[in-house]
Amino acid sequence: MAVEATAPGKAILFGEHSVVYRGPAVVLAIDRRARVVARKRDDDRIFFDAMDLGFSGYFTGETYVPLQGESWRGKRLQAFLVAARKTMEHLGTESGLGITLRSDIPVAAGLGSSAALSVATVASVGGLLGGDLSQEEICELAYEGEKVVHGTPSGVDNNISTYGGVLRYEKDVGIERFELDGDLPFVIGDSMRKRSTKRLVDRVRMLREREPELVEGVLDSIVLVSESGLAALKANDLHRLGDLMNVNHGLLSSLGVSIAKLDMMVHSSRGAGAYGAKLTGAGGGGCMIALSDEASIEKINRAILRCRGEPHVVSVSYEGAKTREVD
Amino acid sequence: MAVEATAPGKAILFGEHSVVYRGPAVVLAIDRRARVVARKRDDDRIFFDAMDLGFSGYFTGETYVPLQGESWRGKRLQAFLVAARKTMEHLGTESGLGITLRSDIPVAAGLGSSAALSVATVASVGGLLGGDLSQEEICELAYEGEKVVHGTPSGVDNNISTYGGVLRYEKDVGIERFELDGDLPFVIGDSMRKRSTKRLVDRVRMLREREPELVEGVLDSIVLVSESGLAALKANDLHRLGDLMNVNHGLLSSLGVSIAKLDMMVHSSRGAGAYGAKLTGAGGGGCMIALSDEASIEKINRAILRCRGEPHVVSVSYEGAKTREVD
Repeated sequence: MAVEATAPGKAILFGEHSVVYRGPAVVLAIDRRARVVARKRDDDRIFFDAMDLGFSGYFTGETYVPLQGESWRGKRLQAFLVAARKTMEHLGTESGLGITLRSDIPVAAGLGSSAALSVATVASVGGLLGGDLSQEEICELAYEGEKVVHGTPSGVDNNISTYGGVLRYEKDVGIERFELDGDLPFVIGDSMRKRSTKRLVDRVRMLREREPELVEGVLDSIVLVSESGLAALKANDLHRLGDLMNVNHGLLSSLGVSIAKLDMMVHSSRGAGAYGAKLTGAGGGGCMIALSDEASIEKINRAILRCRGEPHVVSVSYEGAKTREVD
Repeated sequence: MAVEATAPGKAILFGEHSVVYRGPAVVLAIDRRARVVARKRDDDRIFFDAMDLGFSGYFTGETYVPLQGESWRGKRLQAFLVAARKTMEHLGTESGLGITLRSDIPVAAGLGSSAALSVATVASVGGLLGGDLSQEEICELAYEGEKVVHGTPSGVDNNISTYGGVLRYEKDVGIERFELDGDLPFVIGDSMRKRSTKRLVDRVRMLREREPELVEGVLDSIVLVSESGLAALKANDLHRLGDLMNVNHGLLSSLGVSIAKLDMMVHSSRGAGAYGAKLTGAGGGGCMIALSDEASIEKINRAILRCRGEPHVVSVSYEGAKTREVD
């Protein structure tokens, strides 16, 4: 027997960088999913097959033994190893495991691929070992894995990936989940440039140390954009939403986190009929997101291709982590 | 006898758009000049030769008679016609005139080409007709010409073009002129896209009507950037100046006045070693300006060329309007 679990990726709509200091982030689950299949093994090894990323290997104790790909890949697998082990610990059982990781969420692009894989790992291992895990349990166990790799992440990524939908997150306030009325077609443009969130958060922190009053003012503006954006989202006011995305992109640029390719895709998408467009995630590479109407999707797609970006048409997904038995 | 007068163009360093509402603009005279030669004629016609812009023609009374180029060019010449006539009126004299307009300031690019031509027209006509015009008189008479074409301009352009150097302008406060210690090499990148200042000012006004609190916050940030930038300029702190130019560019983008080509030139200049870079002027086309050190000028030049922009290496010019007799 094997159990497959899937979980969605995410895109940040508002609140990148400002959320580190204050105010909300508005985050969407997108209909791109991580897919994890877990099988029992007779030994005590935990195998990982991530062959569409080009590597596989196993853990015996704490040691990573690569079968394909470099040995540093073991470090990237730690989150999923911990997620699997915490799940077994939680269920009071233990087993060797074969875990297959697949995903159609672009990697290291700010779209929550890592958290989605953690969530799906917990759900599949939980399902395999007979635990009927609640969403709360899945979310918390996946967070344990995320913590190992990312220090103290906000918890947004594992949350959105477990529950799907739309959420508002604010530090010291928490997470509020809600549903939207209309359909929102987005086109995500991947710059194909990997980036490190930490480096970009550091960059903003250093600018804030150099120009505190100025950066505080910009952060205030981003907080206001995010709150207004949330209101526009709830009211399904796409024109206002687009306006606010555009303003937000400029404010993020003023913090030094955009790059030429993101700016180009943003301008081209607007020119192709998007209501608005902005970078999504930490910037410095990664992705931009354009709010489209049905009629403009193809034009925006082509605009992103012309900028040598990789377009992904996505919409909000209300389907969180899902588990099913497979052969 | 003929009299030649020259006057410098300008670049806005800080305060575009915000200055319409409040706070300072910081403006530099650049070492690109308009060059006007005035000669007397025996008839009462006022001839204009702007052959490096591809047109010439004359006014007889209010009627424009084109010799080369389209008749709508007459409208563009109104500012210089009025400047010449106001100068004669001021001197209590009258004459037919042959006026040659030349300029190495890019046209309709936000670099003050029109005001520099007005200033040089007043100075050359004044010199020709024996008036020993003071700088104040030149500045005021040129403003009369500017008013005809631009409604109620701020007076910054004719001012900087008459006096040269650096100035701080604020509405209802006025103009403060000052000199800098060090040399500041700038590279201006012309997007080669003409734009209308009025259309862009309208665009910001409409966004402000839609999102008043948000745009007010952004304007506050630009005012702070401008004040801080002025302090950095006076302290010759090039690193801080560059930082602030970068932040300012993002803030202007958030108001919707940047375009892809300006963003590309801005990013490329930064990548080529500029301390900072931003659009200059109203945006929507026109130019960007990068603050360089001597060592990076060539790299920035090439970076702008690669973006298919036209680079101009400029520095601050303290030489205002200048007059001399020529053959």
